[in-house]
Amino acid sequence: MEATIINIGDELLIGQVTNTNASWMAAQLEGINIHIREINTIADSANAIKESVIKAMDRSDIILITGGLGPTKDDITKNTLCELFQSTLIIDPGTLQQVSNYFRSRNIPLTDINRAQALVPECCTVIPNRVGTAPCMWFEIEGKIIISMPGVPFEMKWLMSHSLLPRLQALHGTEQILHTTICTCGIGESFLAEKIESWESSLPSNYRLAYLPEAGQVRLRLSCHGESLPELQAESEQLIAALQQIIPEYIYGYGEETLPEVIGKLLRAEGKSLATAESCTGGTIAHRITEIPGASDYYMGGVVSYSNALKQLLLGVQETTIEQHGAVSKQTAIEMAQGCRERLHTDYAIATTGIAGPGGGSEEKPVGTVWIAIACEQGTFFECYHFPTLRAQHQERTTTQALYNLWKIIK
Amino acid sequence: MEATIINIGDELLIGQVTNTNASWMAAQLEGINIHIREINTIADSANAIKESVIKAMDRSDIILITGGLGPTKDDITKNTLCELFQSTLIIDPGTLQQVSNYFRSRNIPLTDINRAQALVPECCTVIPNRVGTAPCMWFEIEGKIIISMPGVPFEMKWLMSHSLLPRLQALHGTEQILHTTICTCGIGESFLAEKIESWESSLPSNYRLAYLPEAGQVRLRLSCHGESLPELQAESEQLIAALQQIIPEYIYGYGEETLPEVIGKLLRAEGKSLATAESCTGGTIAHRITEIPGASDYYMGGVVSYSNALKQLLLGVQETTIEQHGAVSKQTAIEMAQGCRERLHTDYAIATTGIAGPGGGSEEKPVGTVWIAIACEQGTFFECYHFPTLRAQHQERTTTQALYNLWKIIK
Repeated sequence: MEATIINIGDELLIGQVTNTNASWMAAQLEGINIHIREINTIADSANAIKESVIKAMDRSDIILITGGLGPTKDDITKNTLCELFQSTLIIDPGTLQQVSNYFRSRNIPLTDINRAQALVPECCTVIPNRVGTAPCMWFEIEGKIIISMPGVPFEMKWLMSHSLLPRLQALHGTEQILHTTICTCGIGESFLAEKIESWESSLPSNYRLAYLPEAGQVRLRLSCHGESLPELQAESEQLIAALQQIIPEYIYGYGEETLPEVIGKLLRAEGKSLATAESCTGGTIAHRITEIPGASDYYMGGVVSYSNALKQLLLGVQETTIEQHGAVSKQTAIEMAQGCRERLHTDYAIATTGIAGPGGGSEEKPVGTVWIAIACEQGTFFECYHFPTLRAQHQERTTTQALYNLWKIIK
Repeated sequence: MEATIINIGDELLIGQVTNTNASWMAAQLEGINIHIREINTIADSANAIKESVIKAMDRSDIILITGGLGPTKDDITKNTLCELFQSTLIIDPGTLQQVSNYFRSRNIPLTDINRAQALVPECCTVIPNRVGTAPCMWFEIEGKIIISMPGVPFEMKWLMSHSLLPRLQALHGTEQILHTTICTCGIGESFLAEKIESWESSLPSNYRLAYLPEAGQVRLRLSCHGESLPELQAESEQLIAALQQIIPEYIYGYGEETLPEVIGKLLRAEGKSLATAESCTGGTIAHRITEIPGASDYYMGGVVSYSNALKQLLLGVQETTIEQHGAVSKQTAIEMAQGCRERLHTDYAIATTGIAGPGGGSEEKPVGTVWIAIACEQGTFFECYHFPTLRAQHQERTTTQALYNLWKIIK
């Protein structure tokens, strides 16, 4: 089946916002064997919307539309689709309930503008949106499926994951599709590709491998299709077991697992605790760890020792250490990790100290230099890295590397 | 003038790569008063390319094409355009020289595949590409300008900045365009729309307002066009001054400014310092603050006091306070903020304690409940909120609200 993605929004056409929805949606749809024919980014204009939808219906089986569903005047997608499909707007009781609850729980009175969010074209099926107030609308017109959803990324992702992808996958009939995602860390895309080259080239013809790189990580998506799901599962398991033999040190998990999640499971199983002492990452490691529900079972907390004074005050780093070796040094990283572990009474402690830039670099310690130390019962492990010199990427890469190092030690 | 951007590449349609070229190009073109009508992402397929270019020529004055110019089999843009414009391929001596130099400088022998990169349609003007081997081609066909350039971001950016934008700007008539972004916080999209309704509806007809909501914030983009840029600027300033009168407490900045940036500027100007004591936000506030280059000038660091033990140990929260009122309470939040400010010796301290979920809620304190306290010279300010019950959104909203509260106090 072929699909067209239409992203509506003036902000996308003046370059104010990068269209990250399209690539996320495309990767998910490709995953259920729906191929994207075209991605069309257009203005909040009735003519542009109508023209784009009509053209897409001419060529694709499925049209996925994002954007233009907010409560304000510049959001016109719903009215335009209603007009195009010659329908009339009616109140959807479920959406009205959802909108009312949303405002009631926040003690905010419901206005007419908000009530109008519950209006939908009579000819559509409403797919409940539990994370926002704009309804998702599923149309079946002239044998084509047209889906209109909010452009807010987390609402779009929630709707796709919880409702739309399972419904779309069900359209496939008897052909079964199986995806397995293998989560790797600690190796770049091209080196990984070289290491697994012979494994990859010997995959059966109904298999396909995609590399999905992120900051410091690569997820591998192994997709296959066939008539029998149990057979596909058994075969995939064998292939992945073979892969595991080739790169055991890089595979930390499967599916949607993240490093902080995998680390959390290991710590919980062993009854161990963790603390963080962050300088250059400025709370990013703590943030990633506490994104996991139930992190309080093993994560005690930590210190963002951004200033040298706090490194001494809260972690007991010696003044002479900073004077002699600098705040960005092996010695400071080690004292931060050990001080954190001792003072916060945990089994493991991660410490980072580096130069995220753009300022603060020197010839000896250029921007991008970072020390990561991990203290635990077995001793203190440390390593120096040189990561990208863009601040945000540097913090992200350091965080991932620190978590990967911790995972290797715990496991 | 209107333009269409066509991005060619299978990798964009399977979601392997996010299309960052389009937004960058759009922002640059918008800056020289060329408006993007549509962004079209299509496959490396001759039919798709022809169809998309023909359609774009029908509606736009300028068509900018990226991608499909590499040396390998799947790159077919050049041949397809040559066929479409009924031209023949000839060797471009300048490009051949560039390709030869490129390989000679790397001591790599020049192959036929590489030599073929110097072939271009006879009907085009070659724009020299000094940072790669694929030529950039400028066509003028039936009164339209069609430009084909490499999809590699840094080659595209080099060509745009050095050659294409100046050439395109020179085509211009006299119409000017002006965008101003107004950054608001502390009020939802629909309430904001209500508050500024009469201001919005009295905007002159050459003005347009867009609402760009994010977690806990709404950016307003005011766009206008006319003959004289100074006149547009003066008029926009007046309109924004009037808006400022209506919602002074919600406008924290303009353009690309963020709350942590604005707070940083205020703190730096006043020579004041800041620390954070985070429970439910788990380092997210520290992370947002340290994303700003130079944050070490005013941000000393903080504590992620995730466990009750650390609230006591690092911040001096009384054991009896937690026993009597609970960790998520006004009293604990106040003691965290005050303890943080005193122990870390800063002028301001932000504290958060809440239930981010999914577990941990009760009837009295449901998931989503959060206390935010800010301690400063004038005293300690605190407030209770009920935010979305999805963990990530809860942390995000609490962080934004805490920063907004701090901004209101400092300003």
